Amino acid sequence: MFLNSADADFDTQFAQLLTMKREDSPDVDAVVAEIIADVQSRGDAAVIELTSKFDRMDLTPETMAFSREEMDVEIAKVPADQRAALALAAERIRAYHDRQLPSDESWEGPHGEMLGWRWTPVEAAGLYVPGGLASYPSSVLMNAIPAQVAGVERLVICAPTPDGVANPLVLLAARLSGVDTVYRIGGAQAIAAMAYGTDTITPVDKITGPGNAFVAAAKRRVFGRVGIDMIAGPSEILVIADKNNDPDWVAVDLLSQAEHDESAQSILITDDAGFGLAVANAVETRLETLERREIAGPSWRDFGAIVVVRDMDEAVALSDRIAPEHLEIACENADVLAARVRHAGAIFIGSYTPEAIGDYIGGPNHVLPTARSARFSSGLSVMDFVKRTTLARMTPEALKAIGPAAETLAKAEGLEAHGLSVRARLNRLNEQ
Amino acid sequence: MFLNSADADFDTQFAQLLTMKREDSPDVDAVVAEIIADVQSRGDAAVIELTSKFDRMDLTPETMAFSREEMDVEIAKVPADQRAALALAAERIRAYHDRQLPSDESWEGPHGEMLGWRWTPVEAAGLYVPGGLASYPSSVLMNAIPAQVAGVERLVICAPTPDGVANPLVLLAARLSGVDTVYRIGGAQAIAAMAYGTDTITPVDKITGPGNAFVAAAKRRVFGRVGIDMIAGPSEILVIADKNNDPDWVAVDLLSQAEHDESAQSILITDDAGFGLAVANAVETRLETLERREIAGPSWRDFGAIVVVRDMDEAVALSDRIAPEHLEIACENADVLAARVRHAGAIFIGSYTPEAIGDYIGGPNHVLPTARSARFSSGLSVMDFVKRTTLARMTPEALKAIGPAAETLAKAEGLEAHGLSVRARLNRLNEQ
Repeated sequence: MFLNSADADFDTQFAQLLTMKREDSPDVDAVVAEIIADVQSRGDAAVIELTSKFDRMDLTPETMAFSREEMDVEIAKVPADQRAALALAAERIRAYHDRQLPSDESWEGPHGEMLGWRWTPVEAAGLYVPGGLASYPSSVLMNAIPAQVAGVERLVICAPTPDGVANPLVLLAARLSGVDTVYRIGGAQAIAAMAYGTDTITPVDKITGPGNAFVAAAKRRVFGRVGIDMIAGPSEILVIADKNNDPDWVAVDLLSQAEHDESAQSILITDDAGFGLAVANAVETRLETLERREIAGPSWRDFGAIVVVRDMDEAVALSDRIAPEHLEIACENADVLAARVRHAGAIFIGSYTPEAIGDYIGGPNHVLPTARSARFSSGLSVMDFVKRTTLARMTPEALKAIGPAAETLAKAEGLEAHGLSVRARLNRLNEQ
Repeated sequence: MFLNSADADFDTQFAQLLTMKREDSPDVDAVVAEIIADVQSRGDAAVIELTSKFDRMDLTPETMAFSREEMDVEIAKVPADQRAALALAAERIRAYHDRQLPSDESWEGPHGEMLGWRWTPVEAAGLYVPGGLASYPSSVLMNAIPAQVAGVERLVICAPTPDGVANPLVLLAARLSGVDTVYRIGGAQAIAAMAYGTDTITPVDKITGPGNAFVAAAKRRVFGRVGIDMIAGPSEILVIADKNNDPDWVAVDLLSQAEHDESAQSILITDDAGFGLAVANAVETRLETLERREIAGPSWRDFGAIVVVRDMDEAVALSDRIAPEHLEIACENADVLAARVRHAGAIFIGSYTPEAIGDYIGGPNHVLPTARSARFSSGLSVMDFVKRTTLARMTPEALKAIGPAAETLAKAEGLEAHGLSVRARLNRLNEQ
């Protein structure tokens, strides 16, 4: 799709790009409701049966979790270069997230009253890690490290092992990020087990992590019983680049999203039509040999776009309408432009910051809001694993000063006992 | 319900108290789905028809919102004492929430790279205010002021006016907290209109505020398209008090929750059985004359509880299992106990801090997590109206230092283009 903001029908075309339906979520809600009810009523037995059915894997309550020795054996298989890379990633992600810990506050109000708030960690969190091709060790770090930094006491993972095949790098990532237990279970049954508990699995308070349609539907259903992170849609990248870039660099950046999923979306906005064309050509060239061309090709063909604009001001305005999950800005004054962006999950600034750096090793979290939800939500962070308790302590003087106003408002709202709870105290204070 | 932790069956009884089903949510999902689809396809016409049907109120696109003059007329009806009380409440709520604005951060990493994040406000927020008896001006302040403090540009309210009856104090609260437009519409149709927009109503990015089962179901359905706050359940209070309290004060505090709703829950935990009995008697005495005894009575009878414990350590442990929305602590060393509480929406410390102070005028928000969700979530705050964009800018040196690790991990995850996006740049840098 090649758009030019100077064209007469640009607005229509851009609106189409914005509202393009990229994902057909199969309606699995009825199946998921059944699975959850089954796990609630039969516990371990249901989890074991469903794992046998879906993952062709026979478990017992005793083998549901990896033992320490089993993990050691798997982890020993990880080659040294991967081990070092994962350790560096964990270190940088931890350093970034360490700065996100919010601070408690308390202060004195005008009448000697104390006001403030206090943050406490969620007690137990469960992280879902998909099986098979989408079993990403980087996602383990991105979910578990913020929880660990927050001070979550008990951190568990559910990661299915279809046909018994484990992912050693996932297990290493779990160990590096303070995970206590890794269960070999997946799907809606894993979400239900973490939300409601079974004899073997102690329930958690918060569930995060990506998953297929069944996992997403299960998370929606258990929301309220436990906290959940976002329900992520297919990945997206928007690159804003001027002609002073290597078209091939931008092409591989676009393809690094496209290779995730046929419904991923990659968009380039540039102020130079010639550069846009050069990138389009570079994408085609790269697609000829790319390992995942069967995925990246359809994604680029169906949802990719190159948008030519008059100037970079227009680029920023269009970017805010897209509210991209990932935004690369590679042009003159990239910092200035970045500071003007209002809606984006993450911004990668300058030609030496390909988005893949953010996926693995930069430090910021790679779990980010998709499908324009950066308009109202943020990526995963330490804040997802803490919660705030507000504090207030009135002095008699404070109650005398502000109590009557509370009483007035309670009366206006027809809530007599609210007023009485203030009045009972004021009467005593006035007697004194 | 009178429990004693020394009793043999206490654990069973306490577990029953925890899992007591207080709310039967009617299944209105099918009706709500139809209403949302109708508003999506017919816009204003659907909203007008549904308002006529449910609120017996005939609107046109022109009269859907209150005009400035109409608001002036309504607001002029507010008595002076209510006006002053609301202004004081707004001032104190604003002062508290002003301190919640998060700050942007950026720093230099070990290789000269820039890392950080930036907060931006949600552009437009919509606040739902129920009609009739539950139309609370205090809730307008508690929802709108955090949005205003966050810097939300456009703030609208949907507040149904059944039979054309407006609530002057709600309109005054809207004006005091920077609301731009108040629409006379309610129910699922109002939520749909704010999420999807109509010719008259520009869509918003975030919807907050309480509502009935239809409103709650509609919020769940539009979640993802827009952000929402929590889905609140019936209100709860837990009072921890020793015998050095006036039983009547504690009784009215318990009733101030009970009067909200027949499914509200009020619990006292005390280390003195005699005091517990005195409070039980004081509740009965107050119930004889309480205006809302037809609501508070059944709530106290069906869901109220007095729990006698051995000591205050036990009280805190049980409180954490309840994870109460509101927690009052009125005993010796109340501050020390408060500091040890891990799960509570809001804590009111000392005998002079009845929870009603927090509902109206204390400063902290009164929109708080119910139904044990304080284990994993927080009350409404400025944070609900801002979102974080993470930032990263690599230098060539940084890319050289950490790029190879990203490449290694990309390969391990089978994502070739991710690795290529790093490799293409490293190759150039290595040539130089």
